[in-house]
Amino acid sequence: MRTPVLALATIALLAASAASAADQALRDKAAAAGLKALPDELQQPKDNPITAEKIALGKMLFFDPRLSASGLISCNTCHNLGTGGDDNLPTSVGHGWQKGPRNAPTVFNAVFNKAQFWDGRAEDLKAQAKGPIQAGVEMANEPDQVMKTLNSMPEYVERFTDAFSGEAQPVSFDNTAKAIEAFEVTLVTPGAPFDKFMAGDDAAMTEEQKTGLELFVDRGCTACHSGVNLGGQSYFPFGLIKRPGADILPLEDKGRFQVTQSVSDEYVFRASPLRNIALTAPYFHSGIVWNLKQAVAVMGTAQLGTEINDAEAGKITAFLHALTGEIPVIEYPIMPVETDSTPRPRL
Amino acid sequence: MRTPVLALATIALLAASAASAADQALRDKAAAAGLKALPDELQQPKDNPITAEKIALGKMLFFDPRLSASGLISCNTCHNLGTGGDDNLPTSVGHGWQKGPRNAPTVFNAVFNKAQFWDGRAEDLKAQAKGPIQAGVEMANEPDQVMKTLNSMPEYVERFTDAFSGEAQPVSFDNTAKAIEAFEVTLVTPGAPFDKFMAGDDAAMTEEQKTGLELFVDRGCTACHSGVNLGGQSYFPFGLIKRPGADILPLEDKGRFQVTQSVSDEYVFRASPLRNIALTAPYFHSGIVWNLKQAVAVMGTAQLGTEINDAEAGKITAFLHALTGEIPVIEYPIMPVETDSTPRPRL
Repeated sequence: MRTPVLALATIALLAASAASAADQALRDKAAAAGLKALPDELQQPKDNPITAEKIALGKMLFFDPRLSASGLISCNTCHNLGTGGDDNLPTSVGHGWQKGPRNAPTVFNAVFNKAQFWDGRAEDLKAQAKGPIQAGVEMANEPDQVMKTLNSMPEYVERFTDAFSGEAQPVSFDNTAKAIEAFEVTLVTPGAPFDKFMAGDDAAMTEEQKTGLELFVDRGCTACHSGVNLGGQSYFPFGLIKRPGADILPLEDKGRFQVTQSVSDEYVFRASPLRNIALTAPYFHSGIVWNLKQAVAVMGTAQLGTEINDAEAGKITAFLHALTGEIPVIEYPIMPVETDSTPRPRL
Repeated sequence: MRTPVLALATIALLAASAASAADQALRDKAAAAGLKALPDELQQPKDNPITAEKIALGKMLFFDPRLSASGLISCNTCHNLGTGGDDNLPTSVGHGWQKGPRNAPTVFNAVFNKAQFWDGRAEDLKAQAKGPIQAGVEMANEPDQVMKTLNSMPEYVERFTDAFSGEAQPVSFDNTAKAIEAFEVTLVTPGAPFDKFMAGDDAAMTEEQKTGLELFVDRGCTACHSGVNLGGQSYFPFGLIKRPGADILPLEDKGRFQVTQSVSDEYVFRASPLRNIALTAPYFHSGIVWNLKQAVAVMGTAQLGTEINDAEAGKITAFLHALTGEIPVIEYPIMPVETDSTPRPRL
């Protein structure tokens, strides 16, 4: 029997509709679980109106190693914009080759996190920016010294004056942080398959990724990993159900307890934002797990009290790859030249 | 008495002609002393035809910290393209925060140097590129390990295959160096006032810079600092006439003697190329002098046996500022993502 061409087309159309209906149901389910697509417009941070001048200045500062005592370490050293916005090290290495206590989180889409750092101790990006510049194990500098450095270079003074026009003291440590925040607000990664899918493009994710998304919701991952960043919104004990071994959860780092001194915050950390997670191994605050599928399995045991088997972890991992967006094109900044009054490197 | 307008115009024209004639004489004098403008076309290095694919791959490699054992240090760490192509440190800092023995030369226009390194031990940029990757005090890596790293990332394998198509083993340490050389060939800085002046634009240099150029020739600086790079062409004892103090010329670094083992090469170094010298303090192989005018004065005493007074040094320094060209616009590369088989950082 020959099937008429028209009937074949109808069958194909019905099948497509069925797929589309299933995809729409999945989209609705993801949205109901709190997952959100990346917004189209730039975020406007608190008390820091974004301007082109501020962004350009912030980019320079972000890449300028002279913000560090040594003159060798820039924001980009640990938040490398060419390797996922982090350093791909277990924990970061800073001044004097000291090893920092925690894995560097990505700077991409960080503006969507409720607070910054693994323990949320900085309320926003401008507060965050001041931390590593001063941390002894990171850039090991002091605000006074940063001001001397920036004031020693006429081009920086001019750029601060333009970016913060009308202010009595445009070159300031606060404004340094605000300019860096302005640049970081632009560090978003649109166009991830997940975002395209949520916008109605059924073909943007593979079937495996869709199954992974379904599992991600059904297994309860969305309880912690929700919002635009699929995480970064609130704090949870690492080992909610079962505490992982001391390799993954070192006993000496009590997480948010160090911020609040509240016993209930022992081993509490900010749920990791998951956008571009495929680019930012190794994982967890301890940076001990390099394999994403393994990290998914650890989460099942530690946070959900369920064994996520290898096939399921593979599907969830496939979905996590659908969170990789387009890294913004950055023109490498030409930084101002030093003068006789620029403080010398302190190595 | 009123001077007719026409007569005034004639006087102005005559004055301009006189200035122009003097400028042309200075131009001829500079050329006769061996100073050359930057050529318009890209240089073609030996045994390494430049292609767009090779340049793009080389840029990635230049910025990739995973060429180092630690995963933290890239070519750009010490040859920062945003700060004059060097690190603005006395001597560079590498693996384990070790201090290297010499000041990092700029990578800009390095293709015009006769040989690379302060002692000329690498005959070209591809030979040079292999040095720091393997030096224990710099990137501290081994060729085998670099190959494992690059082969672990499919995008790198694909890019090497495209850039070195037809070769039996496109991913190789030799080709890594060749790709970096191809990128570095593009790191030239056209448009310096000196180049514009040499091309006939009398107004490109100030009168002070012109006087400085005249002094630069008359005092004999051009004996060592000639060619396109105003240096980088041959080797001279530091302290040809009078050896500087051990702060500027540390006794333990015997320069080219370490390459040739010839006593006549003790404290012999490659004459510094002077393009963009205003961007690359501190000066000399020891990186001990931060002030350019002071460096000029040291050269007078040590190399020429003459005291260059403060006013003259100021004029020569003004001329040296006319050697600052346009830094090329570089789009920061997005580097390939690591895989399970990528060697882990060795900190």
